[in-house]
Amino acid sequence: MLETIDLGKRLPKAEAKAALARLELRLADLQRRARDAGLPVLVVFEGWSAAGKGTLISRLIQPLDPRGFQVHSIGEPNADERRRPFLWRFWNHTPARGRMAIFDRSWYRRVLVERLAEGLGMGEVRQAFAEIRDFERKLADDGAVLIKFFLHIDRREQRRRLKRLARTASLGWRVTAADWRQQRRYPAWVAAVDQMLESTDSDFAPWTVVEAHDERFAAVKVLQTCARAIEAGLRPRRAAPPARRPAEVREEPPAPDLDASVLARVDLASAIGPRAYKRQREALQARMRELEHALYAQRVPLVVVFEGWDAAGKGGAIRRLTATLDPRGYQVVPVAAPNDLEKDHHWLWRFWIHMPKTGHITIFDRSWYGRVLVERVEGFCSQAEWRRAYREINSMEQHLTRFGAVLVKFWLHIDADEQLRRFRERRRTPAKRWKLSDEDWRNREKWDTYRSAVDEMLFRTSTTFAPWTIVESNQKEFARIKVLRTVVSAVEARLARA
Amino acid sequence: MLETIDLGKRLPKAEAKAALARLELRLADLQRRARDAGLPVLVVFEGWSAAGKGTLISRLIQPLDPRGFQVHSIGEPNADERRRPFLWRFWNHTPARGRMAIFDRSWYRRVLVERLAEGLGMGEVRQAFAEIRDFERKLADDGAVLIKFFLHIDRREQRRRLKRLARTASLGWRVTAADWRQQRRYPAWVAAVDQMLESTDSDFAPWTVVEAHDERFAAVKVLQTCARAIEAGLRPRRAAPPARRPAEVREEPPAPDLDASVLARVDLASAIGPRAYKRQREALQARMRELEHALYAQRVPLVVVFEGWDAAGKGGAIRRLTATLDPRGYQVVPVAAPNDLEKDHHWLWRFWIHMPKTGHITIFDRSWYGRVLVERVEGFCSQAEWRRAYREINSMEQHLTRFGAVLVKFWLHIDADEQLRRFRERRRTPAKRWKLSDEDWRNREKWDTYRSAVDEMLFRTSTTFAPWTIVESNQKEFARIKVLRTVVSAVEARLARA
Repeated sequence: MLETIDLGKRLPKAEAKAALARLELRLADLQRRARDAGLPVLVVFEGWSAAGKGTLISRLIQPLDPRGFQVHSIGEPNADERRRPFLWRFWNHTPARGRMAIFDRSWYRRVLVERLAEGLGMGEVRQAFAEIRDFERKLADDGAVLIKFFLHIDRREQRRRLKRLARTASLGWRVTAADWRQQRRYPAWVAAVDQMLESTDSDFAPWTVVEAHDERFAAVKVLQTCARAIEAGLRPRRAAPPARRPAEVREEPPAPDLDASVLARVDLASAIGPRAYKRQREALQARMRELEHALYAQRVPLVVVFEGWDAAGKGGAIRRLTATLDPRGYQVVPVAAPNDLEKDHHWLWRFWIHMPKTGHITIFDRSWYGRVLVERVEGFCSQAEWRRAYREINSMEQHLTRFGAVLVKFWLHIDADEQLRRFRERRRTPAKRWKLSDEDWRNREKWDTYRSAVDEMLFRTSTTFAPWTIVESNQKEFARIKVLRTVVSAVEARLARA
Repeated sequence: MLETIDLGKRLPKAEAKAALARLELRLADLQRRARDAGLPVLVVFEGWSAAGKGTLISRLIQPLDPRGFQVHSIGEPNADERRRPFLWRFWNHTPARGRMAIFDRSWYRRVLVERLAEGLGMGEVRQAFAEIRDFERKLADDGAVLIKFFLHIDRREQRRRLKRLARTASLGWRVTAADWRQQRRYPAWVAAVDQMLESTDSDFAPWTVVEAHDERFAAVKVLQTCARAIEAGLRPRRAAPPARRPAEVREEPPAPDLDASVLARVDLASAIGPRAYKRQREALQARMRELEHALYAQRVPLVVVFEGWDAAGKGGAIRRLTATLDPRGYQVVPVAAPNDLEKDHHWLWRFWIHMPKTGHITIFDRSWYGRVLVERVEGFCSQAEWRRAYREINSMEQHLTRFGAVLVKFWLHIDADEQLRRFRERRRTPAKRWKLSDEDWRNREKWDTYRSAVDEMLFRTSTTFAPWTIVESNQKEFARIKVLRTVVSAVEARLARA
């Protein structure tokens, strides 16, 4: 999930200062209201060494009444703690109703520091994930608000900070051998962090990754996330919606400046020349045809998901992908709004029934991700429903890949200007006019809201077993080659393993 | 969990007939209301071969409108189903809103038939449990009612039935080699069933074990369980209670004749002579002292839980258990109503903080089981809370035993006459009068309500990792010896494994 994070986010000083001043007032007020309501709040800070946990915790507690919170620094377990189950000391530290417990490192030590230092086996790690989920669910069921931050900096930034700290006479002691070890083993840590995020992200205790290169940006994001989570916790919980339900609360509009977007990093100038395009396309399509047979022979199912902006070129990419395939081996499933029969089932049902059998290919032109995109943005499902959907999706995809399926997911990305150009072209071209509807224009107006839904989707559903591929699609030829190449590589990797 | 089931339950013909007639009317009405409310209902029938699944399914569908339900017989997956993840065909069979799907065998095939036939490894089995829980949670979150029956007969009864069936000319074909294989491997099946029950019992999809020796009893229990579950599903869901919450809905009074009680089987005449008592007690107490040191040396923690009727003799048994122990190595934690600080935390917090460190012993005089006994019966917590508590308890106990703790749980059982005798004696004896309160007399009046709460507790929290021991306590001496012997055996077994 970390690879979807844009670390380039910055906030101008004046803007940050004003935002922090407002947030501090808001948090002080929320703390009082949480106390009166008897709402327990847990805030977890995890992150890279030198990412600034200490500074951010200071920022967070500054506006708070010190009688109402406690900061727990979680280091090595002491002799006494070592002699109990690892969750014991955290149960001890759970806050009373109306109080706030802030954890500088936490129960996640087990699956980060201890996992890497003691070389815990996968069985033990999975066990720990299950126990952590259970612990957090118990607290959430009891009414607690859980806020979990992972402060993210890249390897280079960490090296720079550790060196600078080590050089500073008064702070040099703070850089330990363990910090340098983490810097050396950064890639192993990334793998462990990714697995931790995907295994313990939930609707009742979601992770927030904080882009911590810019301290101001990080501070605003931390305070704002806390404020929103506590506000949500103070709102009276709604009864579960009836079977046929109207749209529920819309979420508050996102603060666009804070939404770090992986999309911002995408190089939309990516392009390919016409001759190279033809040559590569033909080679990849020939390979796809071979691979279709190999999949069949080895009984491996393949699922390809296409999502992307309106007019990003999904249809064209799918046509190029399937051009050489034997139609008996694949099926393209176009996904629109659910029909009445589909509405009468669990929302995942209509996708489940189209999952390919072994050796077959299903291509979804739009997919179950509509739940966290259009249904979320347009309020076709409740907030509780789309929040729950991330985990529902991840567990479905895990079930598929464990069964042995290859799962490839594409987000076809274009910018707003390119979309406008394409919409106008569609309007001009009689043969394409049917593709453009009023709804497309309406969606376009909500570009920013959609973008932040896309960002959250890419973050919460980029998993080790089913990663997203973002396709730079301002030039269609480039996009089509990338799609073909990605599918070919994924299938080849899977078949090599079979 | 199966060992807590009393298979001796019978229902007189007239009583069953009348009950069934009422239940059939009620179910027909509920089916219509569920249809109108758009409530999807799933009913799962699992159980031993020849336990009577077919007959009971017929009884259940008799009063129903055939347009509103469908029966799915789940046999071997066909060629097509075999080529998809195992949950695929069940997703296909999920009922539309307002409809009812009845499964004659189900997704549990995977962890019963396939597990035993294909010898699935523990990793795969645990995986399947997790996937099943996730599947059921998705359906429940979507508003579906899940009802799961396991039809239970003992080995002897199964043999009797299989033989009779095989002899009957018209039915002989129904007895297959697989049925006889199950009869031969009955103990292995019991272990698999127990693990299935404990791993997939939840507040949103609870198991009901049906004592199937008496067909009438089984039919009434199946219909009544369905009726109650659908009624609960039709009730508007309540919002989550606030942090400090008053008692919520009381549960409906149980139908005592149907509550199969393991307690009914307990031989309360069990007794021991005075000389044997003294000899055995002294030997066991000496052994306890040795074992305390062995626990310390091997750093194994021990947790002993005492629950039981008022005046069942918990205090006396604890004194005999600890008589020879070094007081630095053990702690007795008496559990009463939670104080204000405790009430301000998660309900499990006050027990967690007393868990022993390695090498130490904690004895709970009453325990976390108060949640599903007194708090349930007296309405000190909501129905949602005590229903959730079974799983919260099981996962805590699993966390403890995985850490390496020995966990022994006692239910001290006496009958109502014996309790009355002891209450009167307490009233007469000045030195004991303090032990008797008005509350004891009030609790006594609710004996049957408590008994059915005890039964459900024993069933839902008897796990492979933390089984209950029921102690026949009408004679105190017998009870004390059984307590001592059980603890000694459990510790010896654990240390042998260390």
